[in-house]
Parts: sequence; C-alpha cells; structure tokens
Amino acid sequence: MSYNAWIFTIGNEVVHGRVLNTNAFYLGRRLTLLGYFVVGNISLVDDVDIVARFLDYVLTYRPMVIVTTGGLGPTYDDRTLEAVSKATGRELELNREALEMIEKKYRSLNLLLTDERRKMAYLPRGSIPIPNPIGTAPGCWLEINHTVIISLPGVPREMEVMWESWVEPRLRSMGPSIHIVERNIRSIGIPESSLAPIVKDILKKFPDVYIKTHPRDEERDRYVIDIYIMYSNRSREIAEKIVNEVVVMLQNEIRKRYGVNIITNI
Amino acid sequence: MSYNAWIFTIGNEVVHGRVLNTNAFYLGRRLTLLGYFVVGNISLVDDVDIVARFLDYVLTYRPMVIVTTGGLGPTYDDRTLEAVSKATGRELELNREALEMIEKKYRSLNLLLTDERRKMAYLPRGSIPIPNPIGTAPGCWLEINHTVIISLPGVPREMEVMWESWVEPRLRSMGPSIHIVERNIRSIGIPESSLAPIVKDILKKFPDVYIKTHPRDEERDRYVIDIYIMYSNRSREIAEKIVNEVVVMLQNEIRKRYGVNIITNI
Repeated sequence: MSYNAWIFTIGNEVVHGRVLNTNAFYLGRRLTLLGYFVVGNISLVDDVDIVARFLDYVLTYRPMVIVTTGGLGPTYDDRTLEAVSKATGRELELNREALEMIEKKYRSLNLLLTDERRKMAYLPRGSIPIPNPIGTAPGCWLEINHTVIISLPGVPREMEVMWESWVEPRLRSMGPSIHIVERNIRSIGIPESSLAPIVKDILKKFPDVYIKTHPRDEERDRYVIDIYIMYSNRSREIAEKIVNEVVVMLQNEIRKRYGVNIITNI
Repeated sequence: MSYNAWIFTIGNEVVHGRVLNTNAFYLGRRLTLLGYFVVGNISLVDDVDIVARFLDYVLTYRPMVIVTTGGLGPTYDDRTLEAVSKATGRELELNREALEMIEKKYRSLNLLLTDERRKMAYLPRGSIPIPNPIGTAPGCWLEINHTVIISLPGVPREMEVMWESWVEPRLRSMGPSIHIVERNIRSIGIPESSLAPIVKDILKKFPDVYIKTHPRDEERDRYVIDIYIMYSNRSREIAEKIVNEVVVMLQNEIRKRYGVNIITNI
C-alpha cells in the first residue's frame, strides 16, 4: 500500500508570481506529518482543460490522495470542480447538502442567492461537501477508484480551518500509523561537495533514511551546511534509534575525515 | 507565436513543505514581466523518472521556455540534468566549458576536483553552460525544437544572480516586445459574489484584459476585495488607455449598483 499524495494549486496569481504559494507549503507539511509521501505539487493557471488534463495524468500514478486548492468561489474563473468533473467523468450536479450550506450562509448575511452563489453548490456526482465555517464556498470530497480528490478554497484561512477540522481527521484514519522523527544538524567549514561522499556511504547502510544537505546561501563563504535527517517507522522507539545512529555516524565520519565537529542541535 | 513558459522546482524539501517555494514565485513574476505567459509551475521530489516524465509531458505543449531550479549540485540526489537528458534524448557528456568553470572555482577555493565536483560538468549534449558567479554548479541552456530548457541551481541567491545577469537578457531578446500595464484597486463593503456579474460584463467588452478578484481573508467580514487588472500591448499608450477604461467602468458600475466607491490607488 503506497500512501502517495499530490497537491494542486489553481490560480493565475500563484503561477504568475503575484502571490507566494503558502497553501502548497502548508499542505505539503501536513500531509508529510500524517505519513503520506507527497510526490509533487502542481500550480496551474485558471484553465479548465489544462487542470483537467493534469489531474487525469496524475491519476495514472494511482495516488491515494489529491488535494486541490483554489478555484471554488463564485466568480467566472473559479472552475476547479469542472476540471475534477472532466478528469473523473463524474458530471457536476446540484448537491442538496452543499446548497443548504450556501443558502444558510447567505441568509445569515442577508443576501440573495444569485446564480453566481448557487453555482458553488454544483459538485461532481458522488461528492461529499466539506463545510466552510468562515467563507461561503463548500469544499468537496470525492472518492474515485483508489484515490480521494479533496478540493478546498484558495483563501488560506478558509483552507486551513477546513483542513484541520474536517479533512485531517479523515486522512489520519485512512493513512499509515507511523511515527516520523526528524533532526536538523549543522556542519560548518566543509563544502557540500565534501559532505556528499559521507552522506552517500551512510545511505548505503540506511537506504530508508532520508538525508538532505542544504547550503545556507547567506553564509556560503563559511560553508554552513544544514543537514536534515528524517525517518519514519511504526515504532517511535525504532525511528528514534535509527535517526540517532545516523547522526552519530555523520558526526564521527566528519570528525575523522575533516577534524570538524557538527552542531547537533539547531 | 505563443510565448508560453513553464517552471519546474525540483527537491523534496519544497514538495514536503520544509521550504517555501520562493523560486517559483520569483521566476513566475520575472517571466510574466518579460511578456511570457506562465502556464504552470510544477514542484517534484528528487526522482529522475518522475521529473523526466513530467518534462516530457510538458514538452508536448510545445512551450517556448521551461525553467528548472534545483538538483544541480554535487550530491547524489542532484539529478535534474539526468532527467532533462532522459526527456530530450540528449545524453549527458562532459562539457569542456563547464569543466573549466568548475576547475577554476575549486582552484580558487584550494580544493581538489573530486568525482562529486566533476559530475557538475556533465550536461546534455548541445547545452551551453551558464556561469555561476557565486556558487559552483553551472546552469544549463539547452535548445530543443521549439523550446529552450534552462536549468538553474536551487539556492535562491545563485539562481537570481544567474537569471538576472545571463538568462534574462537572452529571454528578453527572444520574447515578445510588449508593455504590460497592471493596476490594483480595492472595493470595500461588497461580497466577491456581488462583484462577479460586474466583472463578467466588463470582460465581455474587453476579452483580452485580465481581471481577478482577491478577497483579503483577514478582513472578510468587511468584504475587502482587491481587484487586479492587467493588460499588455505592443503600445504602452494603448495598454494604459485600456486599463484606465476598465478601471473607470468598474468604478461606475460599482457605484451605480451598490452606491460604493472603490479605492483606485493601493
């Protein structure tokens, strides 16, 4: 069973560099901490055909989860669910439950239910609407073969509330029961290219551990390299033991070859 | 002639939400201001096959430009050029010019040319190396049929220097000679769903103008909506005239229907 996940962010403002994509950052982190392996995140302009084709393509990887944000609102260019519908063959239909959510919201705001507002109640057939406690557009949960496609609004505060209150509990119970242990250590005085053979050797011994070196660009001349180590296991004890072994090994090898101590606590 | 562009960012740290993807933001903005239409930006984990397959897929859209960042360094997981090679059928070969750049850099640092360092001189056949004035990994410029694939390092400061000093002048001369006019205005007190029909009407009259509404989430209860308007034309005069007409029209319609003035200067 592979717990692969993909993230889509829809909106010209993200692709054209007017808005920093904090949604993909947030979702990547949350999914990873739930034990899912995020393979990619894809940002696309507001174009139904392109979004549908990429969804279609990503579905061929048979991921467990696809999360989309953006394009759920009342305006003419909010067409993400149309793309989900195209990619899955589930036509859009008026969802009673979603309509009730929207009616209730606009009643409380003393506003009429115009066509633009009613549009947000059309979900792909078989979807479950996700309540939006802050804004107006409901989200959408659609299970299709091996994959659940979760569509959320692009407004960060709405997306996060819906994720934390409704989506995450469900993904947690579907996901792997694992413990993730992470460590960040820092090496000073050795170029990244000199650390590379050490990391390579350690990965031969621990092929399932994830190790990545990050040169801190503002201090390149001093060769400040942060090393990130992550390992997950059903047992927290084992996960911690393995990560500690890797850190000790890194420490010893770096001292042996370059006479330098690493900082293990950053 | 369509000036379409795509951005790839390669690296688990971006996909798994450990690092905010400022590179895609920077590149999206710069390409847009040069007059290119960025269709998507795609972030993928460090996996040669997946990166190669997505490059291959995006090449079927026959874009003018693909920019990749990340995965050019000396470590075992820096394999972006391998993916470019796979996707284009141009095998990696030792590039003399790139090797000279790398040798010179390490000589000046008083470091030996190890295998890990020499690896950075292997570029897809037919590539031009892009000098890296700050770091060590050269970039790579590869023209293939209708597309130029530009590969840059992931360290933001290196990527930006290489972009501004080497890449951008070339893309400017290849790109459309256009002027882009942008305006941001703000509407207060009207829900986004009430603005939607006004924007729709205006777009019927000006189909080439780009208009997008952005609810400012921290102030949703007051309905603060920013409206972004963009138009490009070979003549700056015409571009400015059109954008001004759109702003005046928005202003009049909003005042007429809701008795509210928009803020035209934000």
